[in-house]
Amino acid sequence: MRHFIHLIALVSLVSYGQNSDSTFLRSIYDQALSNGRSYEDLRSLCKDVGPRLSGSAEAEMAVYWSKLRMESYGFDHVYLQEIKVPHWERGNKESAWIKLENGEFIKVNILALGGSIGTNGSIEGDIVEFSHMDELKKAKRSKVEGKIVFLNQAMDEQQISTFKAYGGCYAIRGNGAVEAAKLGAIAVVIRSLAMPVDDHPHTGSMHYEDSIPRIPAAALSTSDAELLSSTLKKGKCRFVMEMDCRNFPDAVSYNVIAELEGEHPNEIITFGGHLDSWDTGEGAHDDGAGVIHCLEALRILKVLGYKPKHTLRLVFFMNEENGNMGGKTYAQWSHDRGEQQIAALESDRGGFSPRGFDCDGDEKYVTMMRSFQALFTPYDLHAFNKGYGGVDIGPLKTTFKGIPLFGFVPDSQRYFDFHHAPSDVFENVNKRELELGCAAIASMIYLLDKNL
Amino acid sequence: MRHFIHLIALVSLVSYGQNSDSTFLRSIYDQALSNGRSYEDLRSLCKDVGPRLSGSAEAEMAVYWSKLRMESYGFDHVYLQEIKVPHWERGNKESAWIKLENGEFIKVNILALGGSIGTNGSIEGDIVEFSHMDELKKAKRSKVEGKIVFLNQAMDEQQISTFKAYGGCYAIRGNGAVEAAKLGAIAVVIRSLAMPVDDHPHTGSMHYEDSIPRIPAAALSTSDAELLSSTLKKGKCRFVMEMDCRNFPDAVSYNVIAELEGEHPNEIITFGGHLDSWDTGEGAHDDGAGVIHCLEALRILKVLGYKPKHTLRLVFFMNEENGNMGGKTYAQWSHDRGEQQIAALESDRGGFSPRGFDCDGDEKYVTMMRSFQALFTPYDLHAFNKGYGGVDIGPLKTTFKGIPLFGFVPDSQRYFDFHHAPSDVFENVNKRELELGCAAIASMIYLLDKNL
Repeated sequence: MRHFIHLIALVSLVSYGQNSDSTFLRSIYDQALSNGRSYEDLRSLCKDVGPRLSGSAEAEMAVYWSKLRMESYGFDHVYLQEIKVPHWERGNKESAWIKLENGEFIKVNILALGGSIGTNGSIEGDIVEFSHMDELKKAKRSKVEGKIVFLNQAMDEQQISTFKAYGGCYAIRGNGAVEAAKLGAIAVVIRSLAMPVDDHPHTGSMHYEDSIPRIPAAALSTSDAELLSSTLKKGKCRFVMEMDCRNFPDAVSYNVIAELEGEHPNEIITFGGHLDSWDTGEGAHDDGAGVIHCLEALRILKVLGYKPKHTLRLVFFMNEENGNMGGKTYAQWSHDRGEQQIAALESDRGGFSPRGFDCDGDEKYVTMMRSFQALFTPYDLHAFNKGYGGVDIGPLKTTFKGIPLFGFVPDSQRYFDFHHAPSDVFENVNKRELELGCAAIASMIYLLDKNL
Repeated sequence: MRHFIHLIALVSLVSYGQNSDSTFLRSIYDQALSNGRSYEDLRSLCKDVGPRLSGSAEAEMAVYWSKLRMESYGFDHVYLQEIKVPHWERGNKESAWIKLENGEFIKVNILALGGSIGTNGSIEGDIVEFSHMDELKKAKRSKVEGKIVFLNQAMDEQQISTFKAYGGCYAIRGNGAVEAAKLGAIAVVIRSLAMPVDDHPHTGSMHYEDSIPRIPAAALSTSDAELLSSTLKKGKCRFVMEMDCRNFPDAVSYNVIAELEGEHPNEIITFGGHLDSWDTGEGAHDDGAGVIHCLEALRILKVLGYKPKHTLRLVFFMNEENGNMGGKTYAQWSHDRGEQQIAALESDRGGFSPRGFDCDGDEKYVTMMRSFQALFTPYDLHAFNKGYGGVDIGPLKTTFKGIPLFGFVPDSQRYFDFHHAPSDVFENVNKRELELGCAAIASMIYLLDKNL
């Protein structure tokens, strides 16, 4: 009988806790949907600032914009953290043509890959196509030397998660220039890492190795990649390209940070996204949505009068796209100050309809996260899996052993329509989808704070 | 020991069944994503045919288009079923203005509601605003008589399902004219049933009652509704409108039907969407996506060589939007032929990323549907709930007692951005989201056929 009474007491307690949590989550969602600031904040970041690559004037304006917004919401502390970032510029010349054997030519859409050297005037060469990175790696030098390598590896459309399909192609962008140059190529053009077949080229980071010659690298739109491939099936053709992109010395920039101080101020829950974006489009989904998700989450928790147990620290990381200097510097700085990092969460997969969260951490954290699932069911979140956190919060994992990282998981189907492309603009973000993401993240931050 | 062996045999059988089902579902998804016809079919329906309101030339072209497509896919039987449909036309005059007290005026965006009478020249009157249908019902005649009623009831943005928010406002469109006319109003304008605040008016069906005077009814864009409301807060204003829409005698039209004949030919699983659409936009999400989902589902099952147990009957219903004559006629016709309707499924909630299925039926069918859930987990479907089937298959429920109805449930967040509006065009449907819907429906039809 006593056991029975204990059991009832326990059930009541758990059920009270869940009831009060579910009421609080409902308040969060009501705020986001009826009194939300996220859509207007994202509009302003996209239109009043624009694309914001590390080292650019726009990136500096974005830092200024972010600090002003954070201050306007009355958080406990708002400050900048200085970092060093790479500085690469696209320049104003970027064009390419396919030249047919009969002398005719076709203009195609390219974007230089971030970090690429320019062509120093125009270059022209025979094209040699590979349908997979592995094919290039196995090729004979005689097939490639003196030519322009065309890496036409398409994202696997049969993958349900488009991020898995992206992962499968990532090497052609990251390592294409190195692998092509090893065999004597004079330049590399890749099929854009994009799901649809359309006219937008998609840029993104690439790297060089010190011992390998540096060659220009660009992305073709997927439709131009198909055109080039079908042209090559009919006979040889040449490719002409000009790009005046270049690297500059490293620049000074900043992570932008805001906090709600916790009962235990030195115990930190870090969450955010990255403020920098590629220099094409407006960085609306990547990662305007992510920083705005997290800004709005902290604003809502403050408006609702939530008093956190741990310090809730919002970080707009700089330089995720081409160096991750924001994430690396932040982890080291926090460690040097003797802080305890309790958990970290990132939003960097777009502003689409929420599906759930990933947890990169010990099984006990995955179990804890799954215990929240029922609270999220009314809001259509259902995917709570072991998975990936995010690039910016990644360095915390090595600096703070055992810290669980959480990644916000929205629907992935449209992400690679816009990623790193001129089409990643505010108009392609849906207001309700964005707002539901803000509410999901505010809810998760609240639950982590209470349960850790 | 024998029990143990039996248990192993049983587990193997179940597990074999699930394995073979999961392999078959994977083939369905691969077809839809890599060799799909759905996106091109939807493009053609939207661009080569266009919007297709019952009784219009476009609706007749849509019937012709559908029969040709079904024949091209080599189904066992393709045929038309004759029905009678209402015939209403918008005409070519549709304009409205707000007239301020100082004599200035502002042009606003309206669409006549489907079925409305015209204004017979222009009409002008004082505006009286109600923020909810119930307010109008309680109003005194003296407040309304001789005026134009403005029903400014907004969809509840705090609802997570936008269909629930739509349901809460439906009465202002369906019954606004009747309730306003009861109190002597000369016309009614409603706030569009739409989630975002923008410039697109959204049309839809309305009705009259024989004993109540018929007055013109139109929808204002949500942004113009907010403008009119804020103008009224500053003082009185008048409203001027002209519409030359009108009703014509009923017309002949058709449901378009295709079948894969089953082992038991007289046992039917009916599935489809509606071919007609409103006369604005292209009926891309409503319900071009739905008919194409189901067409593609049957095509995939045929291509994969599936031999159904029951006859799989694809129906493109005509006239869902303003009369449901297709649905009503079909149910009666099937009954009169002595058919057994085993189950029915409808897709009429847009071409967005799949979330799951509703079941409107006995608890045993809900349980059966939930037993499929694990098979759908790799494809991100998670919502398998008791719920609603669809308007077109609705009449089967009364004609065939006990039949379970299933409704395809995609993500609802963007649906009421486009519903019944000029923006419901092909460009607002995402290829992968559409394809995933086709695969989900093909999978569900397959599982129903095997398990019923």
